[in-house]
Amino acid sequence: VSAHDEIRALNQRYARAADERDIDALERVFHPDAEITGARGTASREGWLDTMRGPRAFPTSMHVLGDPLITMEHPDGDVASVDTYAVVYQLGDDASGSGDMTLGIRYLDTVERHDGRWVVTRRVAKTLWMR
Amino acid sequence: VSAHDEIRALNQRYARAADERDIDALERVFHPDAEITGARGTASREGWLDTMRGPRAFPTSMHVLGDPLITMEHPDGDVASVDTYAVVYQLGDDASGSGDMTLGIRYLDTVERHDGRWVVTRRVAKTLWMR
Amino acid sequence: VSAHDEIRALNQRYARAADERDIDALERVFHPDAEITGARGTASREGWLDTMRGPRAFPTSMHVLGDPLITMEHPDGDVASVDTYAVVYQLGDDASGSGDMTLGIRYLDTVERHDGRWVVTRRVAKTLWMR
Repeated sequence: VSAHDEIRALNQRYARAADERDIDALERVFHPDAEITGARGTASREGWLDTMRGPRAFPTSMHVLGDPLITMEHPDGDVASVDTYAVVYQLGDDASGSGDMTLGIRYLDTVERHDGRWVVTRRVAKTLWMR
Repeated sequence: VSAHDEIRALNQRYARAADERDIDALERVFHPDAEITGARGTASREGWLDTMRGPRAFPTSMHVLGDPLITMEHPDGDVASVDTYAVVYQLGDDASGSGDMTLGIRYLDTVERHDGRWVVTRRVAKTLWMR
Repeated sequence: VSAHDEIRALNQRYARAADERDIDALERVFHPDAEITGARGTASREGWLDTMRGPRAFPTSMHVLGDPLITMEHPDGDVASVDTYAVVYQLGDDASGSGDMTLGIRYLDTVERHDGRWVVTRRVAKTLWMR
């Protein structure tokens, strides 16, 4: 399996873990020393996981990630930049959709291969729009 | 072309065949003995194709599939699990969108290579949300 | 990096350049002799770039491209057909979303490798729906 395909799988494992609120699986996506920057500032992996352990504002979510733009300095290297467009559906209880929120997010990640496994070492999540 | 890329193409051929209601192309996506499970229970390929031959509830559809999460037990094997997030736009005639339906669907597929060609042998389609 | 991965990156560079209105980056996506066909007819690369230099109808856009269906006549060839489903979010200033427009677009591209770099030589953009 190519590095590109492994990195794509990392992205998709993140999406499923986030939607299932599977904290163990989320933990495996990130390096222990990862820095995660979002609307609320920069957090360590543990700090960020703590927010994910908290109550959900929306009962259901779906992180639909587009094909990532992967840039590697060296084709056989262990570091890559990953730029991913995502539409995140945050769904309320109301089937009418009146309580839903949809976000356009751009994930700018640095990913590294450690012990043969790709992990995110740095993430900047930019919310492009929210409805 | 790698197995990963062939499996991705299979996904995309499904999307286009479904949107164009091209029954012959849909048939080629699935193995003759495939089992397809959806909201209405489990169907054989022929039974499922019959429902696709029926009248369309919406004149236009667009199956936008995200990057699939592909898991192969053996990199050179002939079997893979494919987990795909999709947003399916079912569009009514009304440009206002009042008659549209949008679905968040997760396809959990087993795909196999038969005679050098990947086909879906088992699909479970889970509707995550509907608006 | 495989031809498939380079072509996917070309698609994603297009999306980001379009959203950032980065005319130089858009220029690099297309061959100098490219023909681009859309709702307003067929344009040369320069003619099309001129329209992109003009005022924006919407302050923000996001081109979310699904996984492309890539077809190469020869696996090691320098020509491919690329069929991409995209959802293009055109966002107005109003957070309520009342001034937004969302389009379902299918890009049917011919891409070629020139001097080791993939570029679009022909694009037909079909708007499947608009809301």
